[in-house]
Amino acid sequence: MTTDVTDSFHVFDTTLRDGAQREGINLTVADKLTIARHLDDFGVGFIEGGWPGANPRDTEFFQRARQEIDFRHAQLVAFGATRRAGTRAADDPQVVALADSGAPVVTIVAKSHDRHVELALRTTLEENLAMVADTVAYLRERGCRVFVDCEHFFDGHRANPAYATEVVATAHRAGADVVVLCDTNGGMLPSQVHRVVAEVLADTGARLGIHAQDDTGCAVANTLAAVEGGATHVQCTANGYGERVGNANLFPVVAALQLKHGRTVVPPAALPEMTRISHAIAEVVNLTPSTHEPYVGVSAFAHKAGLHASAIKVDPDLYQHTDPELVGNSMRMLVSDMAGRASVELKGKELGYDLTGDRDLVGRVVARVKEQELKGYTYEAADASFELLLRDEVHASPESGGSRHGGAKRYFRVESWRAIAEERPDGSHANEATVRVWAKGERAVATGEGNGPVNALDRALRVALESVYPQLARLELVDYKVRILEGRHGTNSTTRVLISTSDGSAEWSTVGVAENVIAASWQALDDAYTYGLLKAGVEPTE
Amino acid sequence: MTTDVTDSFHVFDTTLRDGAQREGINLTVADKLTIARHLDDFGVGFIEGGWPGANPRDTEFFQRARQEIDFRHAQLVAFGATRRAGTRAADDPQVVALADSGAPVVTIVAKSHDRHVELALRTTLEENLAMVADTVAYLRERGCRVFVDCEHFFDGHRANPAYATEVVATAHRAGADVVVLCDTNGGMLPSQVHRVVAEVLADTGARLGIHAQDDTGCAVANTLAAVEGGATHVQCTANGYGERVGNANLFPVVAALQLKHGRTVVPPAALPEMTRISHAIAEVVNLTPSTHEPYVGVSAFAHKAGLHASAIKVDPDLYQHTDPELVGNSMRMLVSDMAGRASVELKGKELGYDLTGDRDLVGRVVARVKEQELKGYTYEAADASFELLLRDEVHASPESGGSRHGGAKRYFRVESWRAIAEERPDGSHANEATVRVWAKGERAVATGEGNGPVNALDRALRVALESVYPQLARLELVDYKVRILEGRHGTNSTTRVLISTSDGSAEWSTVGVAENVIAASWQALDDAYTYGLLKAGVEPTE
Repeated sequence: MTTDVTDSFHVFDTTLRDGAQREGINLTVADKLTIARHLDDFGVGFIEGGWPGANPRDTEFFQRARQEIDFRHAQLVAFGATRRAGTRAADDPQVVALADSGAPVVTIVAKSHDRHVELALRTTLEENLAMVADTVAYLRERGCRVFVDCEHFFDGHRANPAYATEVVATAHRAGADVVVLCDTNGGMLPSQVHRVVAEVLADTGARLGIHAQDDTGCAVANTLAAVEGGATHVQCTANGYGERVGNANLFPVVAALQLKHGRTVVPPAALPEMTRISHAIAEVVNLTPSTHEPYVGVSAFAHKAGLHASAIKVDPDLYQHTDPELVGNSMRMLVSDMAGRASVELKGKELGYDLTGDRDLVGRVVARVKEQELKGYTYEAADASFELLLRDEVHASPESGGSRHGGAKRYFRVESWRAIAEERPDGSHANEATVRVWAKGERAVATGEGNGPVNALDRALRVALESVYPQLARLELVDYKVRILEGRHGTNSTTRVLISTSDGSAEWSTVGVAENVIAASWQALDDAYTYGLLKAGVEPTE
Repeated sequence: MTTDVTDSFHVFDTTLRDGAQREGINLTVADKLTIARHLDDFGVGFIEGGWPGANPRDTEFFQRARQEIDFRHAQLVAFGATRRAGTRAADDPQVVALADSGAPVVTIVAKSHDRHVELALRTTLEENLAMVADTVAYLRERGCRVFVDCEHFFDGHRANPAYATEVVATAHRAGADVVVLCDTNGGMLPSQVHRVVAEVLADTGARLGIHAQDDTGCAVANTLAAVEGGATHVQCTANGYGERVGNANLFPVVAALQLKHGRTVVPPAALPEMTRISHAIAEVVNLTPSTHEPYVGVSAFAHKAGLHASAIKVDPDLYQHTDPELVGNSMRMLVSDMAGRASVELKGKELGYDLTGDRDLVGRVVARVKEQELKGYTYEAADASFELLLRDEVHASPESGGSRHGGAKRYFRVESWRAIAEERPDGSHANEATVRVWAKGERAVATGEGNGPVNALDRALRVALESVYPQLARLELVDYKVRILEGRHGTNSTTRVLISTSDGSAEWSTVGVAENVIAASWQALDDAYTYGLLKAGVEPTE
């Protein structure tokens, strides 16, 4: 295994350009700068930033990226197109803007499918070749390194292999460093990609790259098949973001190359940053990180089946394809109603409770989890609520039965609450909440206002408890998720709320389930505060 | 292309057994029966229903499936394990229960990785072979067709190829119809799978199957690689549900085999049911259908980039890898702030508005969409709200400016509303809302109660309007989604609500964005009712 990243293999990221085509993504310049920093941390060789000159946002990004980011690994790439038909590259403002952008590397997109040349570009096959040659030569003269994206290459190679191959050869002869074969419509399968890449390499001798879309669900495999066929440049996007189904996902591609092929394509120290960076980029683009994403998903190393859980105690390596720590993830035992005692014991151990000696206790916890999950609770995503449940059972005498708070002491008891949301005749909104709680033997009544009813309840609860528990001031609600659980089989629908809370260093998640969003939010808030006080080492009294 | 599905190739679905291991899935017997009907409609050859005898739910499923489902294509498969070490198959209650289940086909899981035999099973390599042979022979005697799942096969073949191959040969000699090579830990890549399948086929002559987990993001490609290597039996799950990252996704596997390889593996008439069945199964397991799933995702044939949208008008086949109607999906133009005029014109046409002649109007719509999406609205998922926006602009004079409801007439105007949610000291909940609205020149004030504040608002609004618009009685809220849009770059967070409403035949989606969930829900309700009345042909007056 080589241990240095060299120019002989390129990891080229196009999250900021092609990835931004994904439905639901809309990036500001600040977003793009943040993502570029994350990608540089991950050690990709090239970051395609957008199309300078085509829109003001991309132009501003290139200006600010050069000033504000001190890239450690990546080179910034400007994207554009070959010159227009019937002109010279030096006279085409779009091409000149690419050279003027200051990006050391330029990718230009070229047509390589004969029908696209004729129907979409509306020019001749010969003129298209001249456009490729002329544009590459001009950009090389201006001092840029040039990569050429052959759009619709694989469809074009099927329709007219001689012409598609000639486009590659033309770009190569004109001085393109890499010619990238693009499966733009994403319809290819790995064996086809492998065969075509090997053929084109033999026919042209050009350095080849691969750009795969995921429409057959094979973008990662197509990228790897191209590498096995001789490509030495892979174009990917973080988390596979991209148009339609998406692009080849950067993270499993890099993980496969580095961990399975034994090829160093990003700095070895960056690989364990993969999970963090994947989630951070999801945060910036404002999409929930996919729980089931290979390597980096929160479920990627999660074990649920009772069968496996008991064997994992013997030897974890028998049940995972790679060590999750290599990619910054971790093995996780799921608490669920399919789980047996072994899962609960392992989960308890993870939380610092040794349950192995107490079969009754483990049985009670398994029963409580089953009962609660039937009602719609989920402890897989709410570790803090599970720990409170576990703690309740640890402190419960078997006779105390199934009250919601089991046997453990709490910090406060709720008498009642009320939240009011209104729109006034002038169109303005008002939200107010009142809570009545008992803590350390005192009754407190407090009212809060907020930008919504849950926010008003949160503030009212803080006001009611602040003199008794000043530790609550440090807690902040950092995420809030609502899910409507459909009523099937004759039951009513219920609402599940998950809240993430931070004390500035740690973060924890709690769950509430009720017939409406306010009542469910209240339960999750109650657990969030209780857990926060528990972690702060405060002694419960109620 | 063959046009009949024959036994020479098996599509084997294990959604109900292995798919149910996915984090967050918890199936009732009724759920399993519904899913089995959908899978049979899709024409899979085999449906693995669970482990009869291992838990009461699976036992009940097999009993009821035989009585209640008249399978047209699929055979029901019972799953179990080889007999315990040191006994006879006929004396092992778990094996006997499989034969007693009445399922015509049984899959038994066998160990094929030497370390798993020694560390997890804690028996000898010889005894494991005897367990395989004895169990297969017993089930064959009892009249079952037998498939053998070789667990951890690929890891086992790497560690000890001779032993792993011997397990396959033993199962084959004992009478197993198919021996399935399982990548249980999911760490394989397609070229490895292809090579191992071809080798084992040459070494044993057994009929081989493939069971791939998706931990490298290559489960679909690994399944196809195995088929190219000689496997004639593929094990998949609907939507790729399964433990950790998931299993090979049934839908892209079948689509690749049928549409790309030209092999008939499900009845041709069933293929266009794929999108509907994928979404229906997601509904049953209570997971949101993945918008970006190959072939069946709502984004799978959605086009966003202005560049593509204008060329799609020339020839759609240049821009899609397969005809979406072949899999029951459809091409869709996205309205988004990256969209240009071409996208809005195409979307207008889809909705029945010819905008091509009016450049001013298209410009105003593009500007309104950009402005609204900046605030957090999304029209990609709320066609009805987009149509109302479009209708407003069609009716607006250019001078009327950017009021929320533009220029079109509405059915009612809201003066004010108020919603109250409370928990009383006895722990019971109450929700009440009051609305003040004007319709057809009359002011109406009405109060509603509900199981939550939004439900109470919905009821109050119906009461206020029912005498004026009796058509509202037919409308039903069928889905309700809430998303918190994180406030970044110094802005406050906002809440986006998407509501789906049905009038019994059609269904439409509307969006509301506000600083809290109640106010956002109100906006989406307002649009939902307005759109419902518009579709009912009622004349607006306000």
